[in-house]
Amino acid sequence: MITERILKSELAAKVITPAQAAAFFKDKMVVASSGFTKAGDSKAVLTALAERAKLDPLKVTLITGASLGHGTDGILADAHAISLRLPFQVDTIMRRAINSGEVLFIDQHLGETANLLKANNFPKIDIAILEAICIEQDGSIVPTTSVGNSASFAALADKIIIEINTEIPFSLKGVHDIFSPGDYPDRREIPIVNAASRIGQGTIPLDTDKIIGIVFTNIKDSPADIAPQDEVTAVIARHIVDFFTTEVEKGNLTNSLLPLQAGIGKVANAVLRGFLESDFEGLTMYSEVLQDSTFDLLDSGKMTFASGSSITVSSDYYEHIFNDFSIYKDKIVLRPQDISNAAEVIRRLGVIAINTALECDIYGNVNSTHIAGTNMMNGIGGSGDFARNSYLSIFVTQSVAKNETISRIVPMVSHVDHTEHDVDIIVTEHGLADLRGLAPRQRAEVIIEHCAHPDYKAELKSYFDRACARGGHTPHLLEEAFSWYTSLRQHGTMKPVSAEKVEFRA
Amino acid sequence: MITERILKSELAAKVITPAQAAAFFKDKMVVASSGFTKAGDSKAVLTALAERAKLDPLKVTLITGASLGHGTDGILADAHAISLRLPFQVDTIMRRAINSGEVLFIDQHLGETANLLKANNFPKIDIAILEAICIEQDGSIVPTTSVGNSASFAALADKIIIEINTEIPFSLKGVHDIFSPGDYPDRREIPIVNAASRIGQGTIPLDTDKIIGIVFTNIKDSPADIAPQDEVTAVIARHIVDFFTTEVEKGNLTNSLLPLQAGIGKVANAVLRGFLESDFEGLTMYSEVLQDSTFDLLDSGKMTFASGSSITVSSDYYEHIFNDFSIYKDKIVLRPQDISNAAEVIRRLGVIAINTALECDIYGNVNSTHIAGTNMMNGIGGSGDFARNSYLSIFVTQSVAKNETISRIVPMVSHVDHTEHDVDIIVTEHGLADLRGLAPRQRAEVIIEHCAHPDYKAELKSYFDRACARGGHTPHLLEEAFSWYTSLRQHGTMKPVSAEKVEFRA
Repeated sequence: MITERILKSELAAKVITPAQAAAFFKDKMVVASSGFTKAGDSKAVLTALAERAKLDPLKVTLITGASLGHGTDGILADAHAISLRLPFQVDTIMRRAINSGEVLFIDQHLGETANLLKANNFPKIDIAILEAICIEQDGSIVPTTSVGNSASFAALADKIIIEINTEIPFSLKGVHDIFSPGDYPDRREIPIVNAASRIGQGTIPLDTDKIIGIVFTNIKDSPADIAPQDEVTAVIARHIVDFFTTEVEKGNLTNSLLPLQAGIGKVANAVLRGFLESDFEGLTMYSEVLQDSTFDLLDSGKMTFASGSSITVSSDYYEHIFNDFSIYKDKIVLRPQDISNAAEVIRRLGVIAINTALECDIYGNVNSTHIAGTNMMNGIGGSGDFARNSYLSIFVTQSVAKNETISRIVPMVSHVDHTEHDVDIIVTEHGLADLRGLAPRQRAEVIIEHCAHPDYKAELKSYFDRACARGGHTPHLLEEAFSWYTSLRQHGTMKPVSAEKVEFRA
Repeated sequence: MITERILKSELAAKVITPAQAAAFFKDKMVVASSGFTKAGDSKAVLTALAERAKLDPLKVTLITGASLGHGTDGILADAHAISLRLPFQVDTIMRRAINSGEVLFIDQHLGETANLLKANNFPKIDIAILEAICIEQDGSIVPTTSVGNSASFAALADKIIIEINTEIPFSLKGVHDIFSPGDYPDRREIPIVNAASRIGQGTIPLDTDKIIGIVFTNIKDSPADIAPQDEVTAVIARHIVDFFTTEVEKGNLTNSLLPLQAGIGKVANAVLRGFLESDFEGLTMYSEVLQDSTFDLLDSGKMTFASGSSITVSSDYYEHIFNDFSIYKDKIVLRPQDISNAAEVIRRLGVIAINTALECDIYGNVNSTHIAGTNMMNGIGGSGDFARNSYLSIFVTQSVAKNETISRIVPMVSHVDHTEHDVDIIVTEHGLADLRGLAPRQRAEVIIEHCAHPDYKAELKSYFDRACARGGHTPHLLEEAFSWYTSLRQHGTMKPVSAEKVEFRA
């Protein structure tokens, strides 16, 4: 096992247990770990670190690619082992610690973390933990199911711990494309000109003198946990497919569209699956996460190539994909997240970005992260990298939540992650608002008309009309803009307490 | 005159008067005009169009590079000749028409307008009006003091009217660098690797069959109208120079820093002038507008090269610069605004972006455009293009306005143009808040401590403390977040009505 996975033989002496690895960490260290949307994360050392923290308290800064699997963020939060976390998480326990103020969190564009680290705009990484398939003869490592920030961590960290995961088949070798644009002031172009461009090397180079330990694991990635498609998400998907059908008919796009990006989760998967039954051909993807629906599209032949930073799929798909990975070897590539999410490439390729909104306001500003403007859900992730630089920026959301007590279309979003400048289209199950070429007052009419739930339309219209009467480019009544949240806090619903009031105002 | 300026001689027959040119326009047309921050704008045809509209009413969509000089936006608004305006304006009368709802306005990242037009995400341009120094033998035109969107307009418009401005000296020829990354799906890299890279050609190619008229003018650009530096702006400039001095001492930057971008106006000019008395050497600029202070830095030898999309200077500087432009010929370049403001290049070069905020909140969100969340001031301009993709994103503002009745640091900004993700540093006359690597609760403490005016500190602290007591990643009290604006509306000041209340809360 060791000789098969550690081809630079003198490194075999560095094999240690997770508990031994955990002993390297000190209070206040900056720790980096591989892992992007639950794929390719540290599965042994971070949990050993949590165990150690319970006996021997310490708190570290933890930087990853994106979210970790196996409840690791929760285990670390429970052990009070984290002082600062970045750039993304999806864990219930970690989220609670963040919102209570116990854990500080930097919510960051996923494409930017590596740049900030390289630019010395963040403290130096003390130890990086990197999951790998194997260590090559030249000391470079082959990453597993994600690349994330691992190449940057390898370059920047003082010390490195490798987690060799023997569960990941060797057949994945060759799917990675590791490229760095270099350092300021001598950065160069990222020469990707289509989703399939390969511009780098297959392994992550690293200085093996920095390796302080090698740990073996044999644990699969946490499976993606995606709620099944339902009627609402299917309708949203249909609106989007219909929109693109019309764009092709108008001659704005060809039948292969432009490279697709989709956020993670139920709605995004449903939207991608919507393309399965469409007439589009030769689709490509330039995204962060390759999900179940990506492989459906590849399997169907509708999609010819998919570029991402991780493979994050459900258990069934995992078996299917890794059972014979050779089928996908020339159809996918995994890139560092500062390349998958690079503004430069997204703009050049004309990516069509489809992301999920927590809520949208009548002028098209989007909140992706904060419940009632205050409590962090997961983080902005890559949505901003794509929305800002895409050919088309689409946000999807269900029109209401929690038994219709919450409207996802509101007078003013309680937190802004994406400004109206960066939002072209909003879709709910009620329809699609095409905001291209519209001024704010026009946007409001289209969003209320096409996207709002019927129960909230009259109140939205009333707010908008009364705000327009007061005037302004983006009419608002600041004293009332957040009253729906106050109502939700006090009465458990955003709906007006008296139904007559709505009738009257309408 | 004609033979000197129209080198493709058969085009001489197309010379017409401005009034004749104005007759080409029809109601509902999409009209594009050269002009970027008052430089290189249409000086005859747009005003003739306004004259015509008074006698023969019509309304057009008007797209420019950025703002127009000579009060043209106001003249057009007065003539009720504009239905939709984009992407930027700075005119008092136009602003009033926008805020009343008479003129619709699309406030747009200046780097994105050309992309939207090329991507068919906006109606086709019927007529483009382009100021030029001359028409070359091959039919291409030499732009004047700005490039803006002129190259894109020339490529995309159905018909073209050229305004040849004989006031602009021939010596400016050669300063322009016209490049297009191409069209989807075959766009290529923008191969700029430093501020001085020249990647294109000196003239704007166009199909001369599209020219429907050539008008001669001899009117200078409107001079930049910059209020003189005062103690407050000088102090802000000193904070920034001190910050960079420390960054160099720490080894984060070299003595030539990285290419500078600065917004327009008093504060930005003061900041750039701050570098005159510094120890920095070999500075470069990769910005939108080359202002008075740019030429001061070039003259002093502190700056070696400046890249922009326009030259917008005051009268004295205009005389000085164009009196012998040969001095600057190898020190500046003017680019299309989708290149000067390209995310790709800004990120690659590691631009240091310095822009002005209308207001900032305690978490570092910035409002650049909307007074009290409602009324448009000028527009976001290029601030978002730079802030998002820069090496460092700095926003400057005076801590208070209107006799201290308005605090520029507020609990929650009334409109978000730049989210906290995109804001690294905030500077007022009271100090500099370095937000790099800080979570929201830390950001709030630093911003209140370093940037707020003393009269508002206690109230900001009180809001923050009470919001933290309720909890959340970004603690807010939504029912109170905008109360300062309500107070301003009702009492003419954001200050608490009773001074004792502040004392008590503090």
